Amino acid sequence: MDYKAYKAYMSKIADIGHSIAVLSWDKEVNLPSGSAAFRSQQVATLSSIVHEMLTKPSFGESLKDLVEDPTLTNKEKNNVQLTLKEYKKATNFDEEFVIKRSMLTSKAFHAWLDARKKNDWQAYRPALEELVILKREEARLLGDADHPYDNLLDIYEPGMTVQKLDVIFKDVKNELLPLIKKCTSYEKVDDSFLTQSYDEEKQWAYGLEVLEAIGYDFTMGRQDKSTHPFTTSFSPQDVRVTTRVNEHDFSDMLWSSIHEGGHALYEQGLPISEYGLPSGSYMSLGIHESQSRLWENNVARDFAFWEYQFPLLKDRFPNQLADVSLHDFMKAINNIEPNLIRTESDELHYHFHVMIRYEIEKKLIEGSIEVSELKEYWNDAYDDYLGLRPKDDLTGILQDIHWSHGSFGYFPTYSLGSFYAAQFYEQAKQDIYRLEEKLSNGDSSELLSWLRTNIHSKGHTMEAEELCKEITGSGLKLHPFINYIERKFNRLYS
Amino acid sequence: MDYKAYKAYMSKIADIGHSIAVLSWDKEVNLPSGSAAFRSQQVATLSSIVHEMLTKPSFGESLKDLVEDPTLTNKEKNNVQLTLKEYKKATNFDEEFVIKRSMLTSKAFHAWLDARKKNDWQAYRPALEELVILKREEARLLGDADHPYDNLLDIYEPGMTVQKLDVIFKDVKNELLPLIKKCTSYEKVDDSFLTQSYDEEKQWAYGLEVLEAIGYDFTMGRQDKSTHPFTTSFSPQDVRVTTRVNEHDFSDMLWSSIHEGGHALYEQGLPISEYGLPSGSYMSLGIHESQSRLWENNVARDFAFWEYQFPLLKDRFPNQLADVSLHDFMKAINNIEPNLIRTESDELHYHFHVMIRYEIEKKLIEGSIEVSELKEYWNDAYDDYLGLRPKDDLTGILQDIHWSHGSFGYFPTYSLGSFYAAQFYEQAKQDIYRLEEKLSNGDSSELLSWLRTNIHSKGHTMEAEELCKEITGSGLKLHPFINYIERKFNRLYS
Repeated sequence: MDYKAYKAYMSKIADIGHSIAVLSWDKEVNLPSGSAAFRSQQVATLSSIVHEMLTKPSFGESLKDLVEDPTLTNKEKNNVQLTLKEYKKATNFDEEFVIKRSMLTSKAFHAWLDARKKNDWQAYRPALEELVILKREEARLLGDADHPYDNLLDIYEPGMTVQKLDVIFKDVKNELLPLIKKCTSYEKVDDSFLTQSYDEEKQWAYGLEVLEAIGYDFTMGRQDKSTHPFTTSFSPQDVRVTTRVNEHDFSDMLWSSIHEGGHALYEQGLPISEYGLPSGSYMSLGIHESQSRLWENNVARDFAFWEYQFPLLKDRFPNQLADVSLHDFMKAINNIEPNLIRTESDELHYHFHVMIRYEIEKKLIEGSIEVSELKEYWNDAYDDYLGLRPKDDLTGILQDIHWSHGSFGYFPTYSLGSFYAAQFYEQAKQDIYRLEEKLSNGDSSELLSWLRTNIHSKGHTMEAEELCKEITGSGLKLHPFINYIERKFNRLYS
Repeated sequence: MDYKAYKAYMSKIADIGHSIAVLSWDKEVNLPSGSAAFRSQQVATLSSIVHEMLTKPSFGESLKDLVEDPTLTNKEKNNVQLTLKEYKKATNFDEEFVIKRSMLTSKAFHAWLDARKKNDWQAYRPALEELVILKREEARLLGDADHPYDNLLDIYEPGMTVQKLDVIFKDVKNELLPLIKKCTSYEKVDDSFLTQSYDEEKQWAYGLEVLEAIGYDFTMGRQDKSTHPFTTSFSPQDVRVTTRVNEHDFSDMLWSSIHEGGHALYEQGLPISEYGLPSGSYMSLGIHESQSRLWENNVARDFAFWEYQFPLLKDRFPNQLADVSLHDFMKAINNIEPNLIRTESDELHYHFHVMIRYEIEKKLIEGSIEVSELKEYWNDAYDDYLGLRPKDDLTGILQDIHWSHGSFGYFPTYSLGSFYAAQFYEQAKQDIYRLEEKLSNGDSSELLSWLRTNIHSKGHTMEAEELCKEITGSGLKLHPFINYIERKFNRLYS
């Protein structure tokens, strides 16, 4: 197999993978209520074909040969290396293990659904216990690492380790806690105008307008409605987002749209010529999240964006917003207040939600805590860090789907996304002449173009840390995030 | 491979085939304008996997062994036989031929598109010439038959032959021509109220209501909009229809919805336990079409249906229909008038459109006419049978997509569908106590249940002719269709 044949093979795998994505998108957006069984079966069939192609021994042998080919360019070699890494991961487990994992994951997911219905952690606990034992085994089987959890982190954020995350979250504790204290000490903001009645169709139209404004290409994508907003890609030329519309919560639609829009801009900007290859794919979940959060927070929760957009929004909703000043609007959309639900959290408290989960996962995988102790640990941690104690399991330990899917190591990428976003955005402001002035004139095209050049077009040709150094001159640091928050809140409350 | 393994293998093929259907449905209903290239590539990849699975020599060997297995039930044996027939067809041509066919079909399709843009038959002719030469070869390679065209007919309508069709279309000529003469001799109907402005959303809502009324299950299907109405099935539990809505032509939406709804009822009624097998699939295109036309014409262009529905329709569109009587409405929706376009034809002239195409295809394949003579032949035939001569190619020989796709032998199934429909419906009226009275009370459930039992649930366990005999006591005949028309028009114009 030469490089051309390898690329063709990967393209076929991508075609099937994207077909699965179409089936899954359709499931969330269109599927009639009684049609789920066959759809799951069809997805399973396509998935098994992808798995078979990726784990074919002859393919593994070809990769091992090809990676030694001296005529490969660096980018080509990197692609083959990353594919070989995937191959090894995929073939690392014997069939018995794979079947067991699939069984226990399915069991845990259904137990989680059931437990949520009953608002009872105990209905989830035994299945999660079995799954955690398996995940420990999985982390061990994935090879040597300083910490077994590193192997799970690496699935979502290649190169990320406990050692690095411990530093980051120590900084979060040391620097964010005082900042939160400061931000919550300001006078209480009246944000009730955000939850008046906002006509759903008008919201929808405004959401589309904002997506267009940030550069989302509707000739190669579309927005639809789904219960949980998400982005999916069928190729860089067909990247779709979903959002939800809540008549009485205007924010719900808008920031979901922008967040998913940021993810979608990334996928629309991946190099088409590298379709199916690592170099044509996203770099890591942290980098993916950096793109959604950069637009959602650094852009769309700051002044410049709304200096242009707020008058447009007011035109659409004069009754609701006539008496609201831009400054009051900015305060309302930047309200800092602790709550128990991660997905409803403000952009500061959010990282404590993640930190709690990170600490739990790390301890679970290293074996220094057991599932039986989890609820108590969770509730105590919320008490400690957010000053709130869940009154029930639904608003506590049952709120996230991730563990029930067997996803351990995923949560940290959310915080990494925010911190990368701040560091990238700080650099963009240095690189782009009068960026904020341009944003306040409704022009974000240079920002998008900067992201395209520096991030999107690079696909997965390096690790996130390397990219960060290449763009900003240093690896990930917390202080750009702190600076961004301080600067914004100083302006809000000066 | 035992029967169980065969069934599992077929189920996998069906899963991939239905995934292609999802991608294709999405293409017609949702695809952004710039996303077509990768979508075509993805469909091609899945199609090649299906082809590979269906033509695998080891699969063929297994089928040949399995068909001899004395423990198989009749139904099982029939499934294996039909699959073996498909296998032989698929492996009948060498690679060179398959590549050439694919190339020439693609060329002809693009030439057809181009010719339509230019309204110029000459831009299509050379590509069609090459394709016809290939189709002659294909018909020959498919084996011995009384007439080479039989082999092409068999692809769409297993068991159908030139000999049988010649009889049918001779009857059409002898019996339909005088009937048309009679029907067009009646006073001219004023149907202009059908082309007033009908609010599109209200049309849409009424279309959904009618689909529900005929028994279409929206928990296992949905209706969307597309340029050309179609039905697609992802399993009997997810059968979707599309329609189009034209503000100034109420009929366009409604009869498309009902026609596709009839197709969809068939697919929703196929036996789930036979998923992926011939016994879980439709019997022939003629039988499929019989289901759409039975609902579209025999039910929804006759009195009983509208005795119930017309007051509901009037409620929705009081301005447009207040002064219209049921009888005038019935005359308007049964207006008989020749025109040049097959898809816009009334239910009598329609069969002359089909007959002209049938005669041309037969002569082309047997070699008694050449593509160079086609336009003249076409125009003369329209003159002869419909008394109209196309003024240009768009309203003449360029109107259909079929030949450009290489589909020769498809057109006759449209007429067969109408005639089967009339014969089945005549039987249903004998079998169901006071069917028309029930329909006039808005209850079509017994009719659907009769179709489920007698047709849908049978899948492809026999040939159409056999089914017709089983249900009606005789093979296909034209006179039930003639009776249905005469009865309706006698009432309309008595």
